[in-house]
Amino acid sequence: MTITITAFERSPDGGQGLARDTRVRWALEEAGQPYDVRLVSFAAMKEPEHLARHPFGQIPTYEEGDLALFETGAIVFHIAQRHGGLLPGDANAQARALSWMFAAVNTIEPPILDLTIARIHERDKPWAEARLPLVKDRIRERLKQLSARLGEADWLDGAFSAGDLMMVSVLLRLRASGLLDEYANLAAYVARGEARPAYKRAFAAQLAINAPDRARS
Amino acid sequence: MTITITAFERSPDGGQGLARDTRVRWALEEAGQPYDVRLVSFAAMKEPEHLARHPFGQIPTYEEGDLALFETGAIVFHIAQRHGGLLPGDANAQARALSWMFAAVNTIEPPILDLTIARIHERDKPWAEARLPLVKDRIRERLKQLSARLGEADWLDGAFSAGDLMMVSVLLRLRASGLLDEYANLAAYVARGEARPAYKRAFAAQLAINAPDRARS
Repeated sequence: MTITITAFERSPDGGQGLARDTRVRWALEEAGQPYDVRLVSFAAMKEPEHLARHPFGQIPTYEEGDLALFETGAIVFHIAQRHGGLLPGDANAQARALSWMFAAVNTIEPPILDLTIARIHERDKPWAEARLPLVKDRIRERLKQLSARLGEADWLDGAFSAGDLMMVSVLLRLRASGLLDEYANLAAYVARGEARPAYKRAFAAQLAINAPDRARS
Repeated sequence: MTITITAFERSPDGGQGLARDTRVRWALEEAGQPYDVRLVSFAAMKEPEHLARHPFGQIPTYEEGDLALFETGAIVFHIAQRHGGLLPGDANAQARALSWMFAAVNTIEPPILDLTIARIHERDKPWAEARLPLVKDRIRERLKQLSARLGEADWLDGAFSAGDLMMVSVLLRLRASGLLDEYANLAAYVARGEARPAYKRAFAAQLAINAPDRARS
């Protein structure tokens, strides 16, 4: 059955790979699964046809036969459960990988989303400058704990898994802020993720849509 | 094998059931599984022994034989996969239930966490009052979409599932703000969750620890 995902017709990040379709593309590349992409405009994302697939009017979505999914974490886990390359074989280790997937989106990502709000949505507010250090310190608190847990290991729990895929993807959003580079082992961890051939293919695929001139050069 | 979870020695909410151990207790009650509780103080949560179980120094954790898990979503999904009562039998419907679990913690909960930050952590900041309407409007945007999707249905996707358990638990955090009551079908949805015998047992169990006088009356 053909797998079809949705992605931004034009990503707000201009091809940096930070839109969430990159996470799903990466998972499909790790799993060796071909896929089609349906591009949606910002206007189309709020139309009933897309809202039927994604109740919050976002991307990505995932369709395969009569299955339709939304939420990147659920899509990546679905791919990981059905194909090789993203989950350990042991049931307990699989459950721990899901712990890291949830940690990525529920513990690490919320303060990072807050930074986007502070820097973009509330950029022109009178409190913008004064509030930024508080937002950054809440991110640092989480990064310090994550750095302590990762230590000198390559990945969070044994071999590379869907937990690492989600965590690296979330941490990538921090690169421009410089916060990631304050934790050398986390910066190296993210670089290991980006060096994976499957990540490179996923990144190139989204770049070809969002910045075709750069992708061809 | 005995299941042991961790919970606050004294919850910051004084027994309102908003601490995340209530979500795990609720799942265990729906699944009909007995469990032990180890209470941890705020000081003990930052000690190496607890950090080995939970890298971010939070509750709840879940131990069963040689399996140790953290992150509420992963724990609830683990319980749901191994016991009846929380997931549909069909594989596609299971994947959709996980979509709703991720939506609860990654799409609905982040703006709600932001409200806690605005109201508690940044309460004394000069921007507190002026910023609050922005934070509330970001929550309303998500509630409006969720309300539209739920419509007149009892639960998000067919029968009650772990997706509803997580979504109701996240929405409960909004009750005190009055925002939930702006969406009558969501308020009724949350009330349906609270009316479940398993939720009532979970709520009573955390109340007995956090407000023993109220629990006995």
